[in-house]
Amino acid sequence: MTDNRVLLTENFHPLLTEKLSGLGYVCDSRPGITYQEVMDSISSYTGIIVATRIEVDHRLIDAGTNLKFIARAGSGLDRIDVSHARTKGIAVLSSPEGNANAVAEHAVGLLLTMLHNITRSAFETRQGLWLVEKNRVHELEGKTIAIIGYGNTGRAFARKLFPFNMKVLAFDKYLSNYSDDFAMETPMERIYDEAEIVSFHIPLTAETKSMVNHEYMQPFSHPARLINTSRGKIINHRDLLSCIQSGKVIEAACDVYENEDFQNQTKTERMIFDQLVETGKVIFTPHVAGKSFEAGAKHAIVLTEKIGMLK
Amino acid sequence: MTDNRVLLTENFHPLLTEKLSGLGYVCDSRPGITYQEVMDSISSYTGIIVATRIEVDHRLIDAGTNLKFIARAGSGLDRIDVSHARTKGIAVLSSPEGNANAVAEHAVGLLLTMLHNITRSAFETRQGLWLVEKNRVHELEGKTIAIIGYGNTGRAFARKLFPFNMKVLAFDKYLSNYSDDFAMETPMERIYDEAEIVSFHIPLTAETKSMVNHEYMQPFSHPARLINTSRGKIINHRDLLSCIQSGKVIEAACDVYENEDFQNQTKTERMIFDQLVETGKVIFTPHVAGKSFEAGAKHAIVLTEKIGMLK
Repeated sequence: MTDNRVLLTENFHPLLTEKLSGLGYVCDSRPGITYQEVMDSISSYTGIIVATRIEVDHRLIDAGTNLKFIARAGSGLDRIDVSHARTKGIAVLSSPEGNANAVAEHAVGLLLTMLHNITRSAFETRQGLWLVEKNRVHELEGKTIAIIGYGNTGRAFARKLFPFNMKVLAFDKYLSNYSDDFAMETPMERIYDEAEIVSFHIPLTAETKSMVNHEYMQPFSHPARLINTSRGKIINHRDLLSCIQSGKVIEAACDVYENEDFQNQTKTERMIFDQLVETGKVIFTPHVAGKSFEAGAKHAIVLTEKIGMLK
Repeated sequence: MTDNRVLLTENFHPLLTEKLSGLGYVCDSRPGITYQEVMDSISSYTGIIVATRIEVDHRLIDAGTNLKFIARAGSGLDRIDVSHARTKGIAVLSSPEGNANAVAEHAVGLLLTMLHNITRSAFETRQGLWLVEKNRVHELEGKTIAIIGYGNTGRAFARKLFPFNMKVLAFDKYLSNYSDDFAMETPMERIYDEAEIVSFHIPLTAETKSMVNHEYMQPFSHPARLINTSRGKIINHRDLLSCIQSGKVIEAACDVYENEDFQNQTKTERMIFDQLVETGKVIFTPHVAGKSFEAGAKHAIVLTEKIGMLK
């Protein structure tokens, strides 16, 4: 009786259980489940639904002898050993469409909070400091922004930028002919020359890990502002700190960090985080860009449509 | 020799002097000038350019025996006795077109910082608090926003909101037939029923002073989020505080306050400001929405065009 049981490893939107039941699955919702507990029970499930807490690694996949699918509510697949799953004939599904809008909105918010000094000046006014000249704002209009990675969220972000009258350049290593009404396909050589703001919308892979380092920033002609709503590990934050200190990077707004488990950070990870914050030029939001109240339902709909097509 | 001298009472963009000179005016730039010094010298000027620092009141206008125009770089005319100037045949000019874009951008920034908890969660992460659940975001998409006052900045704001797929309602007491592609003309009765967010884009007048008080908020059906990028005095902040405390208002983001001269606030003004901040539900930016680096040049162009048409 393992051909219809699905393990839910987080508190997902109620629509997910409802729709899986509609497809004939029996759902076990175990939001607090540990990696070891998943390991011990995985052989009795035909499917597992994860977010980012449980890592679906090589061992777990080997233990899942009856698994037919691994479904990720969200976009990043960096916590799933996708290639190993595929060699075993297990489908790996995700729902990047589910939170692209939320992430795009958040990226616009981070862009505006930087150029309009919103968070920075709000810190000051809290202390009764009403500093107008120091916080004079930079309009988005007329500025040049580069979107690195032109998939679901990159495109959604470009669409939101439309009425702001910016010059929107896009670079995607794995696509071609992707210019549209919202962004212009642009080689990195031209992005180096023109970009004043750079926003990352790429997955975390062996290739993108620590991609944004000294070497990456070196060819940019203008001091840059950076936005990261993808994964913390795509940025080498030690290098970001020295780029901020040297003025190569003017400021950065990040929804993610290299190690977001603050209880278990190394001393160095915590020290670099604190030093970034102390510059007054870097703000962090706690990996919430894609975690909207609305995205839960969207993930449920997208994922169950994809699961339904497996049958 | 008073027919061509113009007094500049602030550090305006260099384009202003350049273009006024092109029109045959001689500019006196006195950015630190006091009200009394303006009073003592105003009779020798044909024009005066102000922002908000110098109040052009009844007395000053009477002293300006040779004045032909009073030009305000910006939009609010609340520091100028417009009706008295007009009875004296003095033209009153302003450049609301100059900073409408900057204000509209700022309003979107305040909207996103509220619904995506950007400023609030950035305060927490500074202290090493990485609180995901507490900061789950609300997407703009699908929400209903009311724009109160549909002039230059209200319209510019509505245009920016277009790709966010919100329901955008607009109310303007002094306009009719103003529905467009970006907002729908809507009576207050319907705004009371539908609005989840309310953004103010109105001038400060005797009618709008303290307009947003208990009585104003009472008929709203939904707990509301408020945005104020107009003038601080349109809100009764004591009432705002109790609306926040009662939950009638969920949160507010304001670029302005009732008295922005923090050195000379009354104890009550300061106490209410501090209490608003302490709720954790109100953020203030220091009246910078319209003060972009780019707006200075735009004001210069718009104002000198209007001054040129007087000749």
